[in-house]
Amino acid sequence: MELNKRQTEILEIVKADGPITGEQIAERLHLARATIRPDLAILTMAGFLDARPRVGYFYSGKKPVQSVTDSMIGMKVRDFQSIPVVVAENVSVYDAICHMFLEDVGTLFVVNNSSLLTGVLSRKDLLRTSIGNTELDKIPVHVIMTRMPNITYCEKQDTLLQAAKKMIEKQIDSLPVVVGNEEGFEVVGRITKTNITAAFLSLSDDHEL
Amino acid sequence: MELNKRQTEILEIVKADGPITGEQIAERLHLARATIRPDLAILTMAGFLDARPRVGYFYSGKKPVQSVTDSMIGMKVRDFQSIPVVVAENVSVYDAICHMFLEDVGTLFVVNNSSLLTGVLSRKDLLRTSIGNTELDKIPVHVIMTRMPNITYCEKQDTLLQAAKKMIEKQIDSLPVVVGNEEGFEVVGRITKTNITAAFLSLSDDHEL
Repeated sequence: MELNKRQTEILEIVKADGPITGEQIAERLHLARATIRPDLAILTMAGFLDARPRVGYFYSGKKPVQSVTDSMIGMKVRDFQSIPVVVAENVSVYDAICHMFLEDVGTLFVVNNSSLLTGVLSRKDLLRTSIGNTELDKIPVHVIMTRMPNITYCEKQDTLLQAAKKMIEKQIDSLPVVVGNEEGFEVVGRITKTNITAAFLSLSDDHEL
Repeated sequence: MELNKRQTEILEIVKADGPITGEQIAERLHLARATIRPDLAILTMAGFLDARPRVGYFYSGKKPVQSVTDSMIGMKVRDFQSIPVVVAENVSVYDAICHMFLEDVGTLFVVNNSSLLTGVLSRKDLLRTSIGNTELDKIPVHVIMTRMPNITYCEKQDTLLQAAKKMIEKQIDSLPVVVGNEEGFEVVGRITKTNITAAFLSLSDDHEL
């Protein structure tokens, strides 16, 4: 339900100065009491206002209901991101796999000497390389990683919807959250389908379903 | 906004017999016109009913808004599940990895001769086994798989929320969708965090954000 301008004004007056009588509210709005009667009725019946005889209207604390899209637009990458796990370009594939297990992540980000993002390693990349390969300790990760500019990334202020859309479209499980400067991108976070799944759960009022 | 019982009744009457006057609605409910005036006001202002002078009330076509939780409860596993990819218990780890790449999935389900679920293989399980192991073609998957009864599963009629909750709690990326009988479980689908991410996107009205 969307409140109209006058209903929103009434709600603001009651929030600020409630308890307040209908007569006083009408006066503040330079309107007749009869004019605002339907608005008060709708605000009370919708649960935004409570009314008590001989006291007046007061604010119930209930906020106007947002649409799903509106509340989803409020979900930002920065509020759901995880800590990124990075490795240097010359680390071996063997060490990268160990690092992935130790940190229990599905994706590693590769950075250069200036700590700028140069590559991404997924479990899939590492598994592909490790099949039948006995010299994993001799192959540096920069040989097998996905490189810039082929890396899909996001930024802290992006919405979770934008990040989810990128992961689905590019068929990837994780995005680095970056801060850009003239030199390149610094990795400050990680968004995964696990973060999106947690956000999906958080949209429901009742997590005990 | 939730409608109360009387408002819902009025809505039904107008849907069935509108246009209809307030007087006629009151009569049908055995109430005075004044009693239902606030209900008619709230239904009109919330946009459920339209009113036309000398004609009466008619239904606007707008449906009561569902809460996010209500619309999420309507999202069932069967509507979002993917096709499962299964392998036999005696398949080698090497062949399982090839199968995983060919089918481009992150999880394989292992079944016995009766096509009943006996194990699950994740990319992580396969990567762990493949590090420095040159005889992947000699190890059958049943040696390394996660076995029943340690497999978390779901059923077609479960809600996506229940499935998402299981994946977050158990820290797994995928659930088999099963149909149980006296012998065990047949695998009929697969729910992944990708499915949940797609469902998350579908909750928003505007996918072009």
